[in-house]
Formats: sequence, C-alpha cells, structure tokens
Amino acid sequence: MLPIVKGLLAGERRALARAISIVDNDEPESREIIKQIFSKTGNIRTVGFTGPGGAGKSSLVGKLIPECQALGFKVAVLAVDPTSPITGGAILGDRVRMQGNLGNQKVFMRSMASRGAMGGVSKSLRNAIRILDVAGYNIVLIESVGAGQLEVEISKVADLTVVVFTPHTGDNVQAVKAGLTEIGDIYVVNKADLEGATSLYQTVVDLIGDTNRKPAVLKTSAKTGMGVDELAKNIDKLLKEKTINYKERERKMLEDELTDMILNILEKKVSSMLTQDRKYSEFIDRLARKEIDPYVAAEELAGTLFR
Amino acid sequence: MLPIVKGLLAGERRALARAISIVDNDEPESREIIKQIFSKTGNIRTVGFTGPGGAGKSSLVGKLIPECQALGFKVAVLAVDPTSPITGGAILGDRVRMQGNLGNQKVFMRSMASRGAMGGVSKSLRNAIRILDVAGYNIVLIESVGAGQLEVEISKVADLTVVVFTPHTGDNVQAVKAGLTEIGDIYVVNKADLEGATSLYQTVVDLIGDTNRKPAVLKTSAKTGMGVDELAKNIDKLLKEKTINYKERERKMLEDELTDMILNILEKKVSSMLTQDRKYSEFIDRLARKEIDPYVAAEELAGTLFR
Repeated sequence: MLPIVKGLLAGERRALARAISIVDNDEPESREIIKQIFSKTGNIRTVGFTGPGGAGKSSLVGKLIPECQALGFKVAVLAVDPTSPITGGAILGDRVRMQGNLGNQKVFMRSMASRGAMGGVSKSLRNAIRILDVAGYNIVLIESVGAGQLEVEISKVADLTVVVFTPHTGDNVQAVKAGLTEIGDIYVVNKADLEGATSLYQTVVDLIGDTNRKPAVLKTSAKTGMGVDELAKNIDKLLKEKTINYKERERKMLEDELTDMILNILEKKVSSMLTQDRKYSEFIDRLARKEIDPYVAAEELAGTLFR
Repeated sequence: MLPIVKGLLAGERRALARAISIVDNDEPESREIIKQIFSKTGNIRTVGFTGPGGAGKSSLVGKLIPECQALGFKVAVLAVDPTSPITGGAILGDRVRMQGNLGNQKVFMRSMASRGAMGGVSKSLRNAIRILDVAGYNIVLIESVGAGQLEVEISKVADLTVVVFTPHTGDNVQAVKAGLTEIGDIYVVNKADLEGATSLYQTVVDLIGDTNRKPAVLKTSAKTGMGVDELAKNIDKLLKEKTINYKERERKMLEDELTDMILNILEKKVSSMLTQDRKYSEFIDRLARKEIDPYVAAEELAGTLFR
C-alpha cells in the first residue's frame, strides 16, 4: 500500500490534500491511488451547487457547512474553477472567499481546476470524491463556477443538484436561458433579503411547477443566514429518501465514467497519430486548397486510422 | 447542384434559412450542401461576442448591426443558445429579443441550438458560416449565451472575439472568475450609463493591461447607443489589419475541424460498440462489484475495440 493511501485511511489531512492534487493534476500516481482505494469506496454522498455566476453559491455553501455538521455530516467542499483557455490555470476567487471558514477544522475545502479535456472535470471530481470517501467524509458539497457545460459534468457525479438563483444576476429570462430549470432537485432563491427576491421566487415556482417532479423551492440569505438550516434539512431528507437507489446510481455513474475514459484514451491515440502522420498534413493542404471537403477528408482519415 | 444550393447562390432568403436549419439539425442533406459550396467559401469574416449572461450581448449586437452596415458590411447574426440537458431544445429568448430588428431587411438573424455533442456547436457554426458566406454576407456576428465551454467553441470559429462585461452582473471577481480576460481582441464595458461602470472599466483595463497584446477597452451603452459606432470602427479596423493572416487562420481552423470530425466519427463508433457488446456490460458488473478499478476496465476495453 502506498504511504499516501495509508495516510488517507488514517485520516491525515496532508495526505488527503496531496492525494487530491495528484488526481486533479492527473499525475501518474493517481492511477495507483485509485486502484488501492477503489474497493473501499461507495459511502459518501455528493451534492452539486449550480446556477449563474454571482448567485452567491460560494457564500451559501460556506453557511451550509455548520448546518450540515449539526445534522451529523462530516463535510467536504470542492469548488470547480474554470480553466482559462490560455494559461490553463485555476482562479483563486473561491479559495480566497472560503477562507472565512478556515477556523472550522472539521471541514475540508478545495478548489479543483477544470482541465478543459473532454470529461476532465468529471474525472478529477470522481477521483477526488473517492479520496474524500475513504478519508472518512460522508458528504461533499460541489460548487461550480459559472454555468454551461460544467453543470452537465457535475450532474454526472452528484447525487443531488441544488440550483441557486438570485435577484441580482440579470433578469429572469437569463435564468431560464441558462437551462437550469430542469436539472435541480432543490431550487434556492439566494440573497432573499434583496429587492426582487419575491418575484423571482414566484418565477422559479412557476417555471418548474409544470413538471411532475415538484422539487422544493427555498429562499435563503447567505448574508443573514435565513433559510440555510431549512436547506440543510431538505438536502438531508432527500439523501435519505428511498427514491434514490444508490446501487443503481453508482452503476450508471461507473458506466458514464468508463465511456469517458475509453473516449479519452482514443482521443489521445488519434491526436498523436494525426500529428505524426504525414498523410494528415497532406489532407489539410488539400482541404485548404478546397480540393476536398471536410466530410470526405474526415471519413477517409478515420478509415485509415482504424479498421 | 441541389436546388437549395442554387437558391443560396441566388441570395434567396428562404433557401438560406432552410440550409442553416439543415446544418444546425445535422440532417443528412448537410453533407451534400457543404460539399457543393465548400470551394466557394473563404470570404466572410466572423466576430464572436462573449461574456457573462446578462451583460446585454443581444442588445449590443442589435445596435451594432446598422453601424456595421453603415461601414459597408452585409451583416448576419448567429445566436448560440444553450441546450437544455433534458429536452435538447433551444430557448427562444434571443429570437424574441432580436425581433426589435425585424424591420431591417438586409440583416439575417438566426438562433442556433447547441447539440451538446463534442464539438457540436463548432460544427453547426462552421457550416452555417459557410452558408452565409456563399449567400453573400461578409460579416457574421456570433453571440453566445452564457459563459463556459461555449466560449472555447466559438473562439474556434471567430476571427475576432469581443468580450462584453457590465456593472450589473455581479462583482468584478466574478468577471475574472469567468476566465474571459485572456481571450478578447476587444473588451467592452456595456451598460456604461449605469453606476459602477467607471470602476469596472478601470478593473478591466488593469486586468488586461499586463498582457503584451494591449487589446482595446471600450465603453458602450446599448440603451443609449453610446460608443457603439466606436466599437464597429474598432472591429472594422482589426479585421482589416495585416496582423491577421486569413489563409493561415483558415488552415488552422480546418485542422481543428478535421480533428473534431474524426473524433466524432470515433465517438459514434465506440458508443455503438459499447452498447452492443456484451463484454461491456460484464465489465460494468465487475466494476460495480469493485473487482476491478476504472483504469484497468477502460484500458482493457479500449484494447479490445481497436488494435
């Protein structure tokens, strides 16, 4: 057993932080770590927080930590940062903001970088969740920065999704545009002390009221703490309801993961073949001269790469 | 030659609208359309507009249309809508909003759906741009809804990228978080009539001032029209500068497209193999029982699929 895995199982914080860095950076050791811990996983529950940038997800998650702890959870927080397309670096906003909670030694908090690769976020998250699982955490709150594809990736790994809106982030049409009204298990109107919160609350209720699912719609204020205990209770209740078949859910998640990983292996193979193969460069020349069209070029090349 | 292609070359609006629907929905005919028009493409210029949701991109693009027309451009607008992960449908917000410009018969406006597939947005956009190109348009303004992966896909097809911020969309940290400070050729602080615009302008100038590129930072108000003519002139100037080598850029774009298309073909192959192959289901069972780990499963399966 790797020393780092021993450290993890013993609940050592440094081993935990290092192990998550390893999987987040996709370092070679991640493979061996996951190999050694995989059979011990399957107990942690995951809650994704999503919604437009500026909805106050970081602050809300910060306030939720003690509420979840009061309900008996050992809490971890993962914040997914967007990757800048140029530098590939993660932005520190969340880390800075979450430092308000540094006094609370029982919680583990981390920003994860999104690597931009197909399924990169999900891959890092899945493995980080496994590490937190064997380190003894039983709930992880996952905060996404911004909307878009990230939501889809987080929904792949979350048992529950909480969608956070706020009267501050543009008009209600924007909220609808973000396409978030169908993915939530719980909806939250945060910054409920602000003007416009009541009408936004009504809009959200109307928008999701037509569905059969009838998810809860709650009002919170991360600033005053209003409604945060209620949110924690709703999360706890949903996680314990019999409607979630965790065994079945885990199987589906493993299926997604396997598909992502196989496609990733193929993507790497194709990229390296394309850059090394002279035929490829000739095709681009012919394309640029408009002698062939992209469909023909792609099919001919795909045909030569794999039978 | 297909009748629809004849219609396109003759500048018929109905043929144009239909052809774009065909490529956006990835209907079988799209292949033949692109085949027949590909050799005639390469004249249109593309400008992507990006930034947080609620920054007023739709309205700004609306105001830009007559300014670009005044500079001699024949203008088309494509708005990329997010796809809801469940229904797969596009949301009509932009279409509704853009109707304010319906009286202007010279402009062509369309919402495109994002299909969610890897490279789906780029594929639809590339082909829609080709269709607009042969239909005689010489500039297309591409508006993305929301931030995230979409930006990356749009930057793949845009000659220039305009990043739009506004004092309304949360604090400045959020703007930085969105990772947009490195991708712009022009930065715009929109809603410049609102409180906070001056300080946001200064923040943007500071954030991007450290780079070597020194992109322009402009203030606009789509509401009052302030600064929109200046923005049009800056776009025009940049498009005509010798720093953009369009031949080289086109070659790079074709290379990206070809890679996307090959990976897409492989993705389809893999998905169908995985769902039909009994071996795959057995692997998932073994994974769910934790007898093997995901790395081993993915490598063994990838190995059996392709030599």
